[in-house]
Amino acid sequence: MVKTAVLGYGTVGSGIVEVIKTNQEMVNKKAGVDIDVKYILDLRDFPGDPYENLVVHDVEAILNDEEVSIVCEAMGGIEPAYTFSKRALMAGKSVCTSNKELVAKHGPELIQIARENNCNYLFEASVGGGIPIIRPINSSLTPERIEAITGILNGTTNYILTKMEREGSDFSEVLKEAQEKGYAERNPEADVEGYDACRKIAILSSLVYGKTVNFEDIYTEGITKISTRDFAYMKQIDSTIKLLGMSRYVDGKYFAMVAPFVIGRDNALYSVNDVFNAILVKGNTLGETMYYGKGAGKLPTASAVVSDVIDCAKHVGKNIFCFWDPEKLQLAGIEDAKRRFFVRVEGSDKAKAEAAFGKVSFLDAGFSDETGFITEVMSEKEYKEKAEAAGNVISMIRVEE
Amino acid sequence: MVKTAVLGYGTVGSGIVEVIKTNQEMVNKKAGVDIDVKYILDLRDFPGDPYENLVVHDVEAILNDEEVSIVCEAMGGIEPAYTFSKRALMAGKSVCTSNKELVAKHGPELIQIARENNCNYLFEASVGGGIPIIRPINSSLTPERIEAITGILNGTTNYILTKMEREGSDFSEVLKEAQEKGYAERNPEADVEGYDACRKIAILSSLVYGKTVNFEDIYTEGITKISTRDFAYMKQIDSTIKLLGMSRYVDGKYFAMVAPFVIGRDNALYSVNDVFNAILVKGNTLGETMYYGKGAGKLPTASAVVSDVIDCAKHVGKNIFCFWDPEKLQLAGIEDAKRRFFVRVEGSDKAKAEAAFGKVSFLDAGFSDETGFITEVMSEKEYKEKAEAAGNVISMIRVEE
Repeated sequence: MVKTAVLGYGTVGSGIVEVIKTNQEMVNKKAGVDIDVKYILDLRDFPGDPYENLVVHDVEAILNDEEVSIVCEAMGGIEPAYTFSKRALMAGKSVCTSNKELVAKHGPELIQIARENNCNYLFEASVGGGIPIIRPINSSLTPERIEAITGILNGTTNYILTKMEREGSDFSEVLKEAQEKGYAERNPEADVEGYDACRKIAILSSLVYGKTVNFEDIYTEGITKISTRDFAYMKQIDSTIKLLGMSRYVDGKYFAMVAPFVIGRDNALYSVNDVFNAILVKGNTLGETMYYGKGAGKLPTASAVVSDVIDCAKHVGKNIFCFWDPEKLQLAGIEDAKRRFFVRVEGSDKAKAEAAFGKVSFLDAGFSDETGFITEVMSEKEYKEKAEAAGNVISMIRVEE
Repeated sequence: MVKTAVLGYGTVGSGIVEVIKTNQEMVNKKAGVDIDVKYILDLRDFPGDPYENLVVHDVEAILNDEEVSIVCEAMGGIEPAYTFSKRALMAGKSVCTSNKELVAKHGPELIQIARENNCNYLFEASVGGGIPIIRPINSSLTPERIEAITGILNGTTNYILTKMEREGSDFSEVLKEAQEKGYAERNPEADVEGYDACRKIAILSSLVYGKTVNFEDIYTEGITKISTRDFAYMKQIDSTIKLLGMSRYVDGKYFAMVAPFVIGRDNALYSVNDVFNAILVKGNTLGETMYYGKGAGKLPTASAVVSDVIDCAKHVGKNIFCFWDPEKLQLAGIEDAKRRFFVRVEGSDKAKAEAAFGKVSFLDAGFSDETGFITEVMSEKEYKEKAEAAGNVISMIRVEE
């Protein structure tokens, strides 16, 4: 019998208990041992809840109980999740978490503490919710030199962009509706400004490159400036706009970025719509594989945490090696990254646009007061210089090949 | 140092050597030990090949060499692959294979022999080529009761169907072109009749349900009867036709089938085109996840075999538990499976069609000599009775929801 404690009885925490109880037989079979929830830590009481008798308010009850060998951290945020996780690991208890903020900020330290204490710090649920991606990277894509990761990593923004495209509605309109439906937070900044996707691509990049990518180093741009006009142009070229978190290994340099991108119908991410997430990984011999599913939600996220609990139960007293060194990975500045750009400029003067940006492909979405086009391949730096010289740029969205 | 031998130096076998040599540093790092190819077994010689000195013609050299702890079987077919694999496992050597035929026929026996001899029989490459799917099923979807697997499991047929849809060409025309390009075998039966997909869905179903699904028990229908007219109807309803291997767990019964299906734009498999494969798995708490990538090809398939080699190297002397019992899983007959059907009947008499099939949704693809429609949900048995009574059915394709 392996005893586990759940820290935080909110959406994910209660989901973890639900998945274990609903699929108890399967969970025990796959773990090779019976798994039981002994404690639920929360400041609140839950009168009437079937597991109200498991609720404790003091983490010491859990940390001091030698019977507890696995802790599920579903509190979110940095503190007290960080301190509790660290103390659990130092006591030899494995920790399974969905907390991307904490993993992005203190992941390598917690992984190392787990290693030193013969236990595990696992975080499958921290990226892509219910999509198994961390374990495939760690144990399936093992022979590969990963050249690129490209992900739709945030369900809220993908829902908003999908709605804008299908209904021709404005960003602010769709955001308001998403907030009413509970798909977007009342304070939507973390999602719409790309901060959430940024933490996730930092975690994925650290895992595939084996060194720490600081999320603060990643250039991040949100979707607040995307307009209905942008989508009108996209229709002309069978393309759409997605918020992508991406990293690349090119000519010995590492690049990472979060930004809206134009992607065409031939890209596997093109038809990933609504709240779905997907992660496209390119290996040097494997080519492209993609992992698709629900990026969030109570039970999908909880299922991912429970898959980690099962892995920990199979490895009590043993560390599962994770290739993520605390050493910092130096990212190249984005100014050297090369690509095409979708640009809208004021006025209808095509010759002026070509004078400023060189050879371009014009798009006609029927607007007389502006001109839209896609440039040839150039570096971010070249684009920036041309745009500043032109002086009439309304908007720019990068093009993903 | 872990020594491995490669049986069969054809496409996959030479790919395995290439992946190990190209990514040697990564392979060693992930395995935690240096991995080296000691032998290549083939009847032929390979003068001029960089590894010609590793080639042996007698398997005894490999089976009797205690230094060899991992064998990659890339011979294909049942014999002598079966005998060689069995003998290697009985000698305590792990076997990694891409041989779906052998896994579908003797998988549970070989898994058991591996267990008894503290080694492993791994077969990631046997389904979905380079798509990691076996390991995610075994170690990521662990808490889930899997309710459905639906896969595009054969690249050749997917290429043919994609071409037929895009170019409006006939099956036989596209097949001929695919054969010329080397995308289809000169004897294409295993692909176009669905036999290859059948073995793959048998393997996947056995793994998720934990008992043996005999491929001979699976109802299998190929794509040879799909016509350009079928695709003309599909255009009217934003749908397409894909060859699906599927299994379902419904009300305590297990169903499995390989057949062409109508799928709509909202299905994640809709945009899986050309030679790509994808597998959609539905768990009771996780919901749907999808795994996408190249289903075949030298290096993707070889990379999957090498991921198994790395796993074996990390577990020398230890069996990784695999939930696939030799006990036979009883499949329910397909006559009870319920769904809608896309039907084409001779003549333009809509009233007659409704009299025969009940309420239907008519599709208009502009043919005056026939009538196309989609039925309401009914069992296969009911459909069959109605079709026999009608007596004028040209073709039927099942509709996947």
